[in-house]
Amino acid sequence: MNDESFEKIAKQIKQHNSFIITSHVNPDGDSLGCELALARFLKKLNKIVHIINHNETPKFYEFLDKNNEIQKYFPEKHNELIKNSDVIFILDTNQPNRLRSLEEPVLKSPAIKIVIDHHLEADNFADYYLIDEQATSTAEILYKLLLFMNNNLLDYDIAHPLYTAIMTDTGSFRFPRTDVETHQIIAHLLHFGVDPTEVYSKVYETWTPGRIQLLAKSLSTLKLEYDGKLAYMICTIKMFESTGTTEVETDNFTNYPMSIEGVQIGLLFNELDDGVKISFRSKGDIPVNELAKELGGGGHKNAAGARLFNVNLQDTIITTIQKAKKYLI
Amino acid sequence: MNDESFEKIAKQIKQHNSFIITSHVNPDGDSLGCELALARFLKKLNKIVHIINHNETPKFYEFLDKNNEIQKYFPEKHNELIKNSDVIFILDTNQPNRLRSLEEPVLKSPAIKIVIDHHLEADNFADYYLIDEQATSTAEILYKLLLFMNNNLLDYDIAHPLYTAIMTDTGSFRFPRTDVETHQIIAHLLHFGVDPTEVYSKVYETWTPGRIQLLAKSLSTLKLEYDGKLAYMICTIKMFESTGTTEVETDNFTNYPMSIEGVQIGLLFNELDDGVKISFRSKGDIPVNELAKELGGGGHKNAAGARLFNVNLQDTIITTIQKAKKYLI
Repeated sequence: MNDESFEKIAKQIKQHNSFIITSHVNPDGDSLGCELALARFLKKLNKIVHIINHNETPKFYEFLDKNNEIQKYFPEKHNELIKNSDVIFILDTNQPNRLRSLEEPVLKSPAIKIVIDHHLEADNFADYYLIDEQATSTAEILYKLLLFMNNNLLDYDIAHPLYTAIMTDTGSFRFPRTDVETHQIIAHLLHFGVDPTEVYSKVYETWTPGRIQLLAKSLSTLKLEYDGKLAYMICTIKMFESTGTTEVETDNFTNYPMSIEGVQIGLLFNELDDGVKISFRSKGDIPVNELAKELGGGGHKNAAGARLFNVNLQDTIITTIQKAKKYLI
Repeated sequence: MNDESFEKIAKQIKQHNSFIITSHVNPDGDSLGCELALARFLKKLNKIVHIINHNETPKFYEFLDKNNEIQKYFPEKHNELIKNSDVIFILDTNQPNRLRSLEEPVLKSPAIKIVIDHHLEADNFADYYLIDEQATSTAEILYKLLLFMNNNLLDYDIAHPLYTAIMTDTGSFRFPRTDVETHQIIAHLLHFGVDPTEVYSKVYETWTPGRIQLLAKSLSTLKLEYDGKLAYMICTIKMFESTGTTEVETDNFTNYPMSIEGVQIGLLFNELDDGVKISFRSKGDIPVNELAKELGGGGHKNAAGARLFNVNLQDTIITTIQKAKKYLI
């Protein structure tokens, strides 16, 4: 990533008028924050901008989008718009299949396609790529692009979603790659009046009592294997039913196996109606994405996932633990 | 806090040779981090330095002190040393009774006493005070003092405990008063090679399986009152016994009541052999330290505690909830 790659994308922005912004299925803080920050920046340049996602915005991120700038995709409503736009920004993913229902209309559109992302192994489908695998988040890259274009346009409405994006994608400034530059960017964003306590509370302090009960039940299933180097937890259909929760609410539950001293790999098994979803976490150099791949999934080195259909929970646990053994140090 | 107050303390450091550093009972990341950072800075100035605390260093902070620079106080070993030192630094508290067993020897010593702290309502017992109630941590103040004296002396061994102090006292950069300056300081400290992922893991990812089981049991007691504005959890003696844990391991459990949407006050009741310990948390402008005061305790506006002797758990819960009502918005 250098000034030249910024310059190319800045040029595309300057030369065009109508923009679509989208991101991956199940959007997170980084993807939503980047979409809103980029849209607001483009609007300040008097561009026409639409943010369209496969999913609705999760409830705990609605505070970012008070004016409903993000739309859920409907073919009849959006296909023409996507087809006729000048530029499509794909943020926080470089795999078109992760756009899910938007994949087809985006790929079919003659619009110029620009990917901004911090993930590995980009598919070759876009016209321009701005990728930095060393960045904590797509927001760090986008921040630099916006500053490169016009640092006078930054304001609270742009800084607020960028802060949220970086805060969530770094796990509150603790995940690998959080560095000097991350904190320098955050210091700059806070200048615009972003309130860290407010953002944290809006994102993380929105639990339901049912979710707490689910956590209690799931924690009580926690087991250790291989001299405490692997720890796992289970959420069963019965637990979801009795607490009135869904699988979405197990987000971050994998922190608990990982919090035990000596654990190298942490697993969460969610029993679903049609199979099992496994979340994988690891510390240090253990490539848990390789383990996930063995089971048909994928992800980052220290955080990955897999979704198995028509399998039994107990069998899946046994198989997964067996396969995990060779990754332990 | 201004250059003049820094100048006065810098002068005391320059003019003297032997230093004692101490802090409050049950030391936390901020107090231990500051003690080590200041001691290492003073040693670089060829001073004689001893860190002496009422308590042993908690296990999950031992990584800060690999060379055992911190000593637990023993009267026969340390009283002469304290009496004969030139200067005593009291860090992260301004109440001599919070030094517990060290209160008497410190107050009796003819040494010059210097308080560096970020808490309210300082007792009048020291010769010099460096207090900034707007700082997130004592470490932020100490960082500025060290920089004022000689910014060339900062290195990894000083930056590492200062980073740990600020990270823990801000709850990973989310508590009120975390601001532009906090992140600027952190960016500077990371320049010396501090690894945020390592520090987080050493401090927070050292749970025992028993502690997870205690959390599971305690979470299952969670109850809401006053239309969900107050939430509380309980840890009973039976839970501690069946999980092989102690009250110390309930640290941070109060995050869970606070994580529920709409909760303004969160409480944790720990049943102990001789009574009940209550931890109070609140959001925004609710002064939970006032509530704690009503029960004989005290603390910060958003985080306080009280320890009641010879009381019954159930009665204590009922009384506390009744008293809490008037603080809700």
